[in-house]
Amino acid sequence: MRILGLDPALRVTGYGVIERRGGGLALIEAGVVSPSPHAALEQRLQELHSGIRSLLEQTAPDVVVIEELYTTYKNPTTAILMGHARGVMCLASAQAGIPVRTLGHTRVKRALVGSGSASKDQVNAMVTRLLNLRVAPRPNDVSDALAIALAYLNVTEHVLAH
Amino acid sequence: MRILGLDPALRVTGYGVIERRGGGLALIEAGVVSPSPHAALEQRLQELHSGIRSLLEQTAPDVVVIEELYTTYKNPTTAILMGHARGVMCLASAQAGIPVRTLGHTRVKRALVGSGSASKDQVNAMVTRLLNLRVAPRPNDVSDALAIALAYLNVTEHVLAH
Repeated sequence: MRILGLDPALRVTGYGVIERRGGGLALIEAGVVSPSPHAALEQRLQELHSGIRSLLEQTAPDVVVIEELYTTYKNPTTAILMGHARGVMCLASAQAGIPVRTLGHTRVKRALVGSGSASKDQVNAMVTRLLNLRVAPRPNDVSDALAIALAYLNVTEHVLAH
Repeated sequence: MRILGLDPALRVTGYGVIERRGGGLALIEAGVVSPSPHAALEQRLQELHSGIRSLLEQTAPDVVVIEELYTTYKNPTTAILMGHARGVMCLASAQAGIPVRTLGHTRVKRALVGSGSASKDQVNAMVTRLLNLRVAPRPNDVSDALAIALAYLNVTEHVLAH
Protein backbone atom coordinates (compact mmCIF):
# COMPACT_ATOMS: atom_id res chain seq x y z
CA MET A 1 0.00 0.00 0.00
CA ARG A 2 1.45 3.30 -1.15
CA ILE A 3 0.12 6.54 0.33
CA LEU A 4 0.54 10.15 -0.74
CA GLY A 5 -0.01 12.61 2.10
CA LEU A 6 -0.69 16.26 1.22
CA ASP A 7 -0.61 19.37 3.37
CA PRO A 8 -2.48 21.77 1.06
CA ALA A 9 -1.63 25.45 0.79
CA LEU A 10 -1.45 28.03 -1.97
CA ARG A 11 2.17 28.97 -1.26
CA VAL A 12 3.92 25.82 -0.10
CA THR A 13 2.20 22.45 -0.35
CA GLY A 14 4.09 19.69 1.41
CA TYR A 15 3.88 16.13 0.09
CA GLY A 16 5.15 12.79 1.25
CA VAL A 17 4.84 9.33 -0.29
CA ILE A 18 5.29 6.33 1.96
CA GLU A 19 4.89 2.62 1.43
CA ARG A 20 4.40 -0.32 3.67
CA ARG A 21 6.90 -3.01 2.77
CA GLY A 22 6.60 -6.22 4.68
CA GLY A 23 6.85 -5.21 8.31
CA GLY A 24 8.61 -1.90 7.57
CA LEU A 25 7.83 1.54 6.26
CA ALA A 26 9.66 3.18 3.38
CA LEU A 27 9.84 6.82 2.43
CA ILE A 28 9.44 6.90 -1.37
CA GLU A 29 9.54 10.63 -1.99
CA ALA A 30 8.84 13.88 -0.19
CA GLY A 31 9.09 17.59 -0.91
CA VAL A 32 7.07 20.68 -1.65
CA VAL A 33 5.17 22.17 -4.58
CA SER A 34 5.47 25.95 -4.49
CA PRO A 35 3.99 27.94 -7.37
CA SER A 36 5.54 31.29 -8.40
CA PRO A 37 4.56 33.56 -5.50
CA HIS A 38 3.99 36.66 -7.64
CA ALA A 39 1.97 35.05 -10.45
CA ALA A 40 -1.78 35.57 -10.78
CA LEU A 41 -3.97 33.25 -8.72
CA GLU A 42 -5.09 31.22 -11.75
CA GLN A 43 -1.46 30.70 -12.84
CA ARG A 44 -0.47 29.56 -9.39
CA LEU A 45 -3.36 27.10 -9.35
CA GLN A 46 -2.30 25.80 -12.74
CA GLU A 47 1.27 25.25 -11.49
CA LEU A 48 -0.09 23.53 -8.40
CA HIS A 49 -2.37 21.31 -10.48
CA SER A 50 0.35 20.22 -12.89
CA GLY A 51 2.78 19.69 -10.00
CA ILE A 52 0.34 17.35 -8.28
CA ARG A 53 -0.54 15.60 -11.55
CA SER A 54 3.17 14.88 -12.21
CA LEU A 55 3.64 13.68 -8.66
CA LEU A 56 0.69 11.28 -9.00
CA GLU A 57 2.05 9.94 -12.29
CA GLN A 58 5.59 9.52 -10.97
CA THR A 59 4.75 7.94 -7.64
CA ALA A 60 1.45 6.13 -8.46
CA PRO A 61 -0.03 6.08 -4.94
CA ASP A 62 -3.02 3.86 -4.08
CA VAL A 63 -4.63 6.65 -2.11
CA VAL A 64 -4.25 10.40 -1.56
CA VAL A 65 -4.74 11.61 1.99
CA ILE A 66 -5.44 15.29 2.60
CA GLU A 67 -5.99 17.04 5.87
CA GLU A 68 -9.69 17.41 6.61
CA LEU A 69 -11.31 20.75 5.95
CA TYR A 70 -11.03 22.83 9.08
CA THR A 71 -12.17 26.33 9.79
CA THR A 72 -9.95 27.62 12.55
CA TYR A 73 -8.05 29.99 10.29
CA LYS A 74 -7.65 33.43 11.80
CA ASN A 75 -7.87 35.11 8.41
CA PRO A 76 -10.93 34.16 6.31
CA THR A 77 -9.20 35.18 3.04
CA THR A 78 -6.35 32.75 3.79
CA ALA A 79 -8.90 30.03 4.48
CA ILE A 80 -10.71 30.59 1.17
CA LEU A 81 -7.42 30.70 -0.76
CA MET A 82 -6.37 27.44 0.90
CA GLY A 83 -9.74 26.13 -0.35
CA HIS A 84 -8.74 27.05 -3.91
CA ALA A 85 -5.52 25.04 -3.54
CA ARG A 86 -7.20 22.09 -1.82
CA GLY A 87 -9.88 22.02 -4.54
CA VAL A 88 -7.27 21.79 -7.28
CA MET A 89 -5.55 18.91 -5.44
CA CYS A 90 -8.80 16.98 -4.98
CA LEU A 91 -9.48 17.54 -8.68
CA ALA A 92 -6.03 16.28 -9.74
CA SER A 93 -6.54 13.10 -7.69
CA ALA A 94 -10.02 12.49 -9.11
CA GLN A 95 -8.72 13.03 -12.66
CA ALA A 96 -5.97 10.47 -12.00
CA GLY A 97 -8.58 8.03 -10.67
CA ILE A 98 -6.95 7.85 -7.25
CA PRO A 99 -9.27 7.84 -4.20
CA VAL A 100 -9.08 10.80 -1.83
CA ARG A 101 -9.33 10.33 1.90
CA THR A 102 -9.25 12.92 4.66
CA LEU A 103 -8.03 12.87 8.25
CA GLY A 104 -8.54 15.53 10.90
CA HIS A 105 -5.71 17.31 12.68
CA THR A 106 -6.43 15.73 16.06
CA ARG A 107 -6.78 12.27 14.58
CA VAL A 108 -3.37 12.56 12.92
CA LYS A 109 -1.75 13.44 16.25
CA ARG A 110 -3.59 10.71 18.09
CA ALA A 111 -2.67 8.09 15.49
CA LEU A 112 1.03 9.01 15.63
CA VAL A 113 1.72 10.08 19.20
CA GLY A 114 -1.27 8.63 21.04
CA SER A 115 -2.70 12.01 22.05
CA GLY A 116 -4.76 14.52 20.07
CA SER A 117 -3.02 17.37 21.86
CA ALA A 118 0.54 16.28 20.96
CA SER A 119 2.95 19.09 20.02
CA LYS A 120 4.38 19.66 16.55
CA ASP A 121 7.77 18.56 17.90
CA GLN A 122 6.37 15.28 19.14
CA VAL A 123 4.75 14.61 15.76
CA ASN A 124 8.00 15.55 13.98
CA ALA A 125 10.01 13.22 16.20
CA MET A 126 7.61 10.35 15.50
CA VAL A 127 7.74 10.91 11.73
CA THR A 128 11.55 10.91 11.89
CA ARG A 129 11.65 7.72 13.97
CA LEU A 130 9.03 5.76 12.01
CA LEU A 131 10.74 6.44 8.70
CA ASN A 132 14.24 5.85 10.10
CA LEU A 133 15.43 9.31 9.05
CA ARG A 134 18.63 10.76 10.43
CA VAL A 135 17.12 14.24 10.74
CA ALA A 136 13.56 15.57 10.89
CA PRO A 137 12.10 16.42 7.45
CA ARG A 138 12.24 20.12 6.55
CA PRO A 139 10.36 22.36 5.95
CA ASN A 140 7.52 21.61 8.34
CA ASP A 141 5.10 21.26 5.41
CA VAL A 142 6.92 18.06 4.40
CA SER A 143 6.82 16.66 7.92
CA ASP A 144 3.09 17.48 8.15
CA ALA A 145 2.40 15.71 4.86
CA LEU A 146 4.34 12.62 5.99
CA ALA A 147 2.49 12.70 9.32
CA ILE A 148 -0.85 12.60 7.49
CA ALA A 149 0.29 9.66 5.33
CA LEU A 150 1.67 7.74 8.34
CA ALA A 151 -1.45 8.43 10.40
CA TYR A 152 -3.67 7.15 7.61
CA LEU A 153 -1.63 3.97 7.37
CA ASN A 154 -1.99 3.45 11.08
CA VAL A 155 -5.72 4.20 11.15
CA THR A 156 -6.37 1.73 8.32
CA GLU A 157 -3.76 -0.94 9.04
CA HIS A 158 -2.72 -0.44 12.67
CA VAL A 159 0.99 -0.61 11.98
CA LEU A 160 2.07 1.30 15.05
CA ALA A 161 1.73 -0.02 18.56
CA HIS A 162 0.05 2.27 21.08
CA MET B 1 -15.78 41.27 -27.14
CA ARG B 2 -17.31 38.14 -25.65
CA ILE B 3 -17.48 37.77 -21.87
CA LEU B 4 -18.23 34.78 -19.66
CA GLY B 5 -19.52 35.75 -16.23
CA LEU B 6 -19.39 33.15 -13.45
CA ASP B 7 -21.08 33.04 -10.08
CA PRO B 8 -19.01 30.31 -8.42
CA ALA B 9 -20.50 27.81 -5.98
CA LEU B 10 -20.07 24.13 -5.27
CA ARG B 11 -23.77 23.29 -5.72
CA VAL B 12 -25.07 25.60 -8.44
CA THR B 13 -22.66 27.72 -10.48
CA GLY B 14 -24.43 30.24 -12.68
CA TYR B 15 -22.86 31.27 -15.99
CA GLY B 16 -23.72 33.79 -18.65
CA VAL B 17 -22.00 34.60 -21.92
CA ILE B 18 -22.67 37.99 -23.49
CA GLU B 19 -21.24 39.76 -26.50
CA ARG B 20 -21.09 43.33 -27.61
CA ARG B 21 -22.27 43.56 -31.21
CA GLY B 22 -22.07 46.99 -32.76
CA GLY B 23 -24.06 49.19 -30.44
CA GLY B 24 -26.05 46.33 -28.92
CA LEU B 25 -25.62 43.52 -26.45
CA ALA B 26 -26.37 39.88 -27.19
CA LEU B 27 -26.97 37.01 -24.80
CA ILE B 28 -25.03 34.07 -26.26
CA GLU B 29 -25.69 31.45 -23.63
CA ALA B 30 -26.60 31.16 -19.96
CA GLY B 31 -27.35 28.43 -17.49
CA VAL B 32 -25.99 26.55 -14.50
CA VAL B 33 -23.43 23.85 -13.83
CA SER B 34 -24.62 21.71 -10.93
CA PRO B 35 -22.56 18.66 -10.02
CA SER B 36 -24.24 15.59 -8.49
CA PRO B 37 -25.13 16.81 -4.99
CA HIS B 38 -24.45 13.49 -3.27
CA ALA B 39 -21.13 12.64 -4.92
CA ALA B 40 -17.81 12.93 -3.07
CA LEU B 41 -16.24 16.41 -3.07
CA GLU B 42 -13.52 15.43 -5.56
CA GLN B 43 -16.09 14.01 -7.99
CA ARG B 44 -18.18 17.16 -7.76
CA LEU B 45 -15.09 19.26 -8.47
CA GLN B 46 -14.29 17.06 -11.45
CA GLU B 47 -17.82 17.53 -12.84
CA LEU B 48 -17.54 21.27 -12.26
CA HIS B 49 -14.14 21.41 -13.97
CA SER B 50 -15.25 19.50 -17.05
CA GLY B 51 -18.49 21.52 -17.22
CA ILE B 52 -16.53 24.78 -17.26
CA ARG B 53 -13.98 23.38 -19.73
CA SER B 54 -16.80 22.42 -22.16
CA LEU B 55 -18.44 25.80 -21.73
CA LEU B 56 -15.15 27.57 -22.53
CA GLU B 57 -14.65 25.42 -25.63
CA GLN B 58 -18.21 25.87 -26.88
CA THR B 59 -18.51 29.60 -26.28
CA ALA B 60 -14.86 30.75 -26.68
CA PRO B 61 -15.03 33.90 -24.53
CA ASP B 62 -12.26 36.54 -24.64
CA VAL B 63 -12.31 36.87 -20.88
CA VAL B 64 -13.74 35.09 -17.84
CA VAL B 65 -15.09 37.34 -15.09
CA ILE B 66 -15.57 35.88 -11.62
CA GLU B 67 -16.88 37.58 -8.54
CA GLU B 68 -14.03 38.82 -6.37
CA LEU B 69 -13.09 36.79 -3.35
CA TYR B 70 -15.14 38.02 -0.41
CA THR B 71 -15.24 36.86 3.14
CA THR B 72 -18.63 37.78 4.47
CA TYR B 73 -19.89 34.21 4.53
CA LYS B 74 -21.66 33.36 7.77
CA ASN B 75 -20.44 29.78 7.65
CA PRO B 76 -16.65 29.37 7.27
CA THR B 77 -17.02 25.82 5.89
CA THR B 78 -19.29 27.11 3.11
CA ALA B 79 -16.70 29.80 2.33
CA ILE B 80 -13.86 27.28 2.06
CA LEU B 81 -15.97 24.93 -0.08
CA MET B 82 -16.83 27.86 -2.37
CA GLY B 83 -13.06 28.39 -2.55
CA HIS B 84 -12.64 24.81 -3.82
CA ALA B 85 -15.16 25.50 -6.61
CA ARG B 86 -13.73 28.93 -7.48
CA GLY B 87 -10.22 27.45 -7.60
CA VAL B 88 -11.30 24.81 -10.10
CA MET B 89 -12.92 27.50 -12.29
CA CYS B 90 -9.83 29.71 -12.25
CA LEU B 91 -7.80 26.62 -13.16
CA ALA B 92 -10.09 25.70 -16.08
CA SER B 93 -9.78 29.25 -17.48
CA ALA B 94 -5.99 29.28 -17.12
CA GLN B 95 -5.76 25.87 -18.82
CA ALA B 96 -7.84 27.21 -21.72
CA GLY B 97 -5.55 30.25 -21.95
CA ILE B 98 -8.40 32.68 -21.24
CA PRO B 99 -7.64 35.62 -18.92
CA VAL B 100 -9.48 35.76 -15.60
CA ARG B 101 -10.72 39.06 -14.21
CA THR B 102 -12.56 39.73 -10.97
CA LEU B 103 -15.13 42.31 -9.91
CA GLY B 104 -16.40 43.02 -6.41
CA HIS B 105 -20.05 42.74 -5.41
CA THR B 106 -20.48 46.48 -4.85
CA ARG B 107 -18.76 47.36 -8.10
CA VAL B 108 -21.11 45.08 -10.03
CA LYS B 109 -24.14 46.83 -8.53
CA ARG B 110 -22.68 50.27 -9.09
CA ALA B 111 -21.79 49.49 -12.70
CA LEU B 112 -25.29 48.23 -13.47
CA VAL B 113 -27.65 50.26 -11.32
CA GLY B 114 -25.47 53.23 -10.40
CA SER B 115 -25.42 52.44 -6.67
CA GLY B 116 -23.35 49.94 -4.71
CA SER B 117 -26.29 49.33 -2.39
CA ALA B 118 -28.77 48.41 -5.14
CA SER B 119 -31.14 45.53 -4.36
CA LYS B 120 -31.08 42.13 -6.06
CA ASP B 121 -34.38 43.04 -7.74
CA GLN B 122 -32.91 46.21 -9.20
CA VAL B 123 -29.91 44.29 -10.55
CA ASN B 124 -32.23 41.61 -11.98
CA ALA B 125 -34.39 44.23 -13.67
CA MET B 126 -31.33 45.86 -15.23
CA VAL B 127 -29.98 42.53 -16.52
CA THR B 128 -33.40 41.79 -18.06
CA ARG B 129 -33.62 45.21 -19.69
CA LEU B 130 -30.06 45.38 -21.01
CA LEU B 131 -30.32 41.99 -22.67
CA ASN B 132 -33.86 42.61 -23.97
CA LEU B 133 -35.23 39.55 -22.22
CA ARG B 134 -38.95 39.06 -21.79
CA VAL B 135 -38.54 37.68 -18.28
CA ALA B 136 -35.80 37.87 -15.68
CA PRO B 137 -33.27 35.01 -15.93
CA ARG B 138 -33.84 32.16 -13.48
CA PRO B 139 -32.46 30.84 -11.18
CA ASN B 140 -30.81 33.83 -9.50
CA ASP B 141 -27.38 32.26 -10.07
CA VAL B 142 -27.81 32.87 -13.81
CA SER B 143 -28.89 36.47 -13.31
CA ASP B 144 -25.91 37.05 -10.99
CA ALA B 145 -23.50 35.62 -13.57
CA LEU B 146 -24.97 37.81 -16.32
CA ALA B 147 -24.78 40.83 -13.99
CA ILE B 148 -21.04 40.20 -13.49
CA ALA B 149 -20.46 39.90 -17.25
CA LEU B 150 -22.50 43.06 -18.01
CA ALA B 151 -20.80 45.02 -15.23
CA TYR B 152 -17.38 44.04 -16.55
CA LEU B 153 -18.34 45.18 -20.03
CA ASN B 154 -19.45 48.50 -18.62
CA VAL B 155 -16.38 48.98 -16.44
CA THR B 156 -14.05 48.29 -19.38
CA GLU B 157 -16.03 49.78 -22.27
CA HIS B 158 -18.57 52.12 -20.67
CA VAL B 159 -21.47 50.80 -22.68
CA LEU B 160 -24.17 51.90 -20.26
CA ALA B 161 -25.02 55.49 -19.58
CA HIS B 162 -25.09 56.55 -15.93
